[in-house]
Amino acid sequence: MTDRVAELAERLAEFAREREWQRFHTPKNLAMALAGEVGELVAEFQWLTAEESADLDSETLERVRGELGDVTNYLVRLADLLGVDLLAAAGDKLDRSERRYDVATYRGSARKAPPLTP
Amino acid sequence: MTDRVAELAERLAEFAREREWQRFHTPKNLAMALAGEVGELVAEFQWLTAEESADLDSETLERVRGELGDVTNYLVRLADLLGVDLLAAAGDKLDRSERRYDVATYRGSARKAPPLTP
Amino acid sequence: MTDRVAELAERLAEFAREREWQRFHTPKNLAMALAGEVGELVAEFQWLTAEESADLDSETLERVRGELGDVTNYLVRLADLLGVDLLAAAGDKLDRSERRYDVATYRGSARKAPPLTP
Amino acid sequence: MTDRVAELAERLAEFAREREWQRFHTPKNLAMALAGEVGELVAEFQWLTAEESADLDSETLERVRGELGDVTNYLVRLADLLGVDLLAAAGDKLDRSERRYDVATYRGSARKAPPLTP
Repeated sequence: MTDRVAELAERLAEFAREREWQRFHTPKNLAMALAGEVGELVAEFQWLTAEESADLDSETLERVRGELGDVTNYLVRLADLLGVDLLAAAGDKLDRSERRYDVATYRGSARKAPPLTP
Repeated sequence: MTDRVAELAERLAEFAREREWQRFHTPKNLAMALAGEVGELVAEFQWLTAEESADLDSETLERVRGELGDVTNYLVRLADLLGVDLLAAAGDKLDRSERRYDVATYRGSARKAPPLTP
Repeated sequence: MTDRVAELAERLAEFAREREWQRFHTPKNLAMALAGEVGELVAEFQWLTAEESADLDSETLERVRGELGDVTNYLVRLADLLGVDLLAAAGDKLDRSERRYDVATYRGSARKAPPLTP
Repeated sequence: MTDRVAELAERLAEFAREREWQRFHTPKNLAMALAGEVGELVAEFQWLTAEESADLDSETLERVRGELGDVTNYLVRLADLLGVDLLAAAGDKLDRSERRYDVATYRGSARKAPPLTP
């Protein structure tokens, strides 16, 4: 198997199976767990300036990397249970953003709040 | 390039470059955008029972797929700016969970709140 | 002063002033801090069933009470900086919900996802 | 009754009772709804600079006020169901922060990330 996301999804399913924890892994519960981990990620950045957030010291970066790992695990597990291909879903939203925010209109725009995806 | 995550990261970087939106894409701002999208994802599940959340109607599933796509886009963009390999970070956390929650001790455990990752 | 929210807002302002931490307390940063604390609150409930969440053991309830306190502190501080009266803002949204979800139409409704506020 | 929070809690309980929506209002579900609304609040600030977030235009401020109202409604409803006095819980956490971050040590501190509440 060469798809790294699918490999991770399989490891996560096996992790739950071995421990008989599947009953905890409902989509509702996993969405909450994802929100909890994203809360921890946001907390790492809350008092930093924009500049500081782009130049993390190694200790903070290591904690942030751990939170990104937690977020990814819950996201991949949730998508797997719902039968959603995350990268295809992301690509579809990005296709839509590319059409909606055409370069000619939006380049150098002074709009304060351009979304990445609408 | 065969890594689908790296491919998406490159598309997202190009999307921002073309529109000159890189100045909005600080790690701090992207962490906030990620939190906003996860909020939308959680909202899809908030009034559903556990059973309903595991058996979404096609209309809800389509909306959830869109939210998962948004979450993935911001997560991949954020990790790219920080130089973090999401799947490696996730695998490291899962390694740790496998050691911490060994199968012999935790299988069939009546513990109410086993985390996927500690 | 008899308004308990205003009293708390004043205590929080004094707390920041004494420590010269006002520069950290931008609305943007406080919104992030609020999201971080709500993430901790959600995490307390993530693996519980609906029934368990309505009948917390005393230890969990004490932790939840602490998280609710944290959320309240950041919410009150943020609203104070923006000049928003939280209870008036909440009442206005509830007025709107009462009109939008009239009792005759919505009582006993089988709708799966009635919002408290639209 | 002079306690505005208690008044709002009673209005919210009546709102749910009249529509027979109490079964949706489990603490678990309300924590999710709170997270969803906080996500909308964070999204309002995500692309703003710190300075812009402290000087919102009237249209943005009105939207933010609405989100703060939604957050307050779910927070007050959740605390009411759990029997928690929000302002007492907040005051207790602030007491603890005042002891932990004593003024003599922390005033003018160069620490990057002082929490409001630990």
